[in-house]
Amino acid sequence: MSLPRKVRLVEVGPRDGLQNEAQPISVTDKVQLVNDLTDAGLGYIEVGSFVSPKWVPQMAGSAEVFAGIEQRAGVTYAALAPNLRGFEDALAAGVKEVAVFAAATEAFSQRNINCSVSESLTRFEPIMQAAQQHGVRVRGYVSCVLGCPYEGRVSAEQVAPVARALHDMGCYEVSLGDTLGTGTAGDTRRLFEVVAQQVPREQLAGHFHDTYGQALANVYASLLEGIALFDSSVAGLGGCPYAKGATGNIATEDVLYMLQGLGIETGIDLDKLIAAGLRISAVLGRATGSRVARARSAG
Amino acid sequence: MSLPRKVRLVEVGPRDGLQNEAQPISVTDKVQLVNDLTDAGLGYIEVGSFVSPKWVPQMAGSAEVFAGIEQRAGVTYAALAPNLRGFEDALAAGVKEVAVFAAATEAFSQRNINCSVSESLTRFEPIMQAAQQHGVRVRGYVSCVLGCPYEGRVSAEQVAPVARALHDMGCYEVSLGDTLGTGTAGDTRRLFEVVAQQVPREQLAGHFHDTYGQALANVYASLLEGIALFDSSVAGLGGCPYAKGATGNIATEDVLYMLQGLGIETGIDLDKLIAAGLRISAVLGRATGSRVARARSAG
Repeated sequence: MSLPRKVRLVEVGPRDGLQNEAQPISVTDKVQLVNDLTDAGLGYIEVGSFVSPKWVPQMAGSAEVFAGIEQRAGVTYAALAPNLRGFEDALAAGVKEVAVFAAATEAFSQRNINCSVSESLTRFEPIMQAAQQHGVRVRGYVSCVLGCPYEGRVSAEQVAPVARALHDMGCYEVSLGDTLGTGTAGDTRRLFEVVAQQVPREQLAGHFHDTYGQALANVYASLLEGIALFDSSVAGLGGCPYAKGATGNIATEDVLYMLQGLGIETGIDLDKLIAAGLRISAVLGRATGSRVARARSAG
Repeated sequence: MSLPRKVRLVEVGPRDGLQNEAQPISVTDKVQLVNDLTDAGLGYIEVGSFVSPKWVPQMAGSAEVFAGIEQRAGVTYAALAPNLRGFEDALAAGVKEVAVFAAATEAFSQRNINCSVSESLTRFEPIMQAAQQHGVRVRGYVSCVLGCPYEGRVSAEQVAPVARALHDMGCYEVSLGDTLGTGTAGDTRRLFEVVAQQVPREQLAGHFHDTYGQALANVYASLLEGIALFDSSVAGLGGCPYAKGATGNIATEDVLYMLQGLGIETGIDLDKLIAAGLRISAVLGRATGSRVARARSAG
């Protein structure tokens, strides 16, 4: 069993993280966060989301954030675009890469986006066409890949066709999200084993929430399946570490610390990353959700 | 690669956990905790420590705790006994199993117990003799097995002779402790691979602190090396989850949740365990350090 020599981390803190924080964050602070992350060496940063601010008030101002950040050559600055309107707004803001998302289960799809899984995929078609026209790459997310709040445990066989459909539609990469954080290491391995029969392994990402403390073990389990691409969130943004039922993403610092210990290259500077996480945590007025950052800053 | 079918968990919360908590806990609350843990199905509980209360005030009253708990047949109730005086006190309190500990590094041994590693082992000899005489089993701990605050990264080759010495002296089981919590999954695997050449694998335990968020990934890595015995602490006792540089043990609930997900038997009831952890956390006046307990109690 050999682990990947290199791993790419997709930083989702400014989007998946901040959109789940309770308090509003100014455009200036978001710009600072993205610039800090660029400076720390992240190669892919999900900067914002082009959705109605009625639905997700935290993501208002994404166009201003894109206008304000310093874009470094070779770094991808992406945005979520759940529909054609969002895609057009993203395009107008100069976004070069977008992400779309579908659920693995019918119940979650119905309650979250009011349509079936296959309808949600159909709705992406105009986005995929427009993206191709404008040379914009599209990343696909599948949520609830290991557990669903309405259907319980989710099988790999349920996930595979959704991942494949996104891939077939033109998503160059598909991220499998354990939205609830209920998944454990064995199910994670089986998930990638099964889905990799439909989508090439090197185009699959793992996206783990740490609600049940399982996220890092699941990253390690994924590495053992040859997965070399993970989404994570600086300072564990998106779930207050002190709140009941915190649902935050795994902290980028904690993933990076493990990868470094495993001798895996990422190109990211841990000290700068910790500093970025402590800065945004101070803005939010709370302690960082990264255990590595807490341990290191304890001196 | 096959995982163990069964895993035994050694509950160290009442000792390794509570001794690191800032506030004093009454004998009544400790007795309640141990009884709760028995009721949850734990097969091994480290109840207290027979040390000078000058050194470890939290462990004062260990004899009263032993006198107060309801001992269930088939369950081991153990105590730490760092010297012969402690062993005799433990014996007088009716303790049937004790634990001794040595460090993997000279610097930690010198600064923590004021003698070299080999001197510390020599000092255990009278305990081992007395234990044999009285039919008391002895468990050995090695601390700093992956990192040392003074020497940095610790190699498996440094740990192996200490583990072997404990085993040769008569410790029926040796627990390898990542005291600092700095170790990662690859080093954990190598540790067990190397030490298992000196001590039978089935007599080795993993003891992980979650200071850097690595503990559960390290448990999974250990399982892959055939280790089927882990120390953990209900509610993650021993490190306040909100404090800087929290050094708590991995939460028993979070380990058990993963083991259940992997289909591994333990004989422990997760709901009762969560309740035990929530009760002692309430006594301490803080939130539980178990993410599973937080997620479950969020309803």
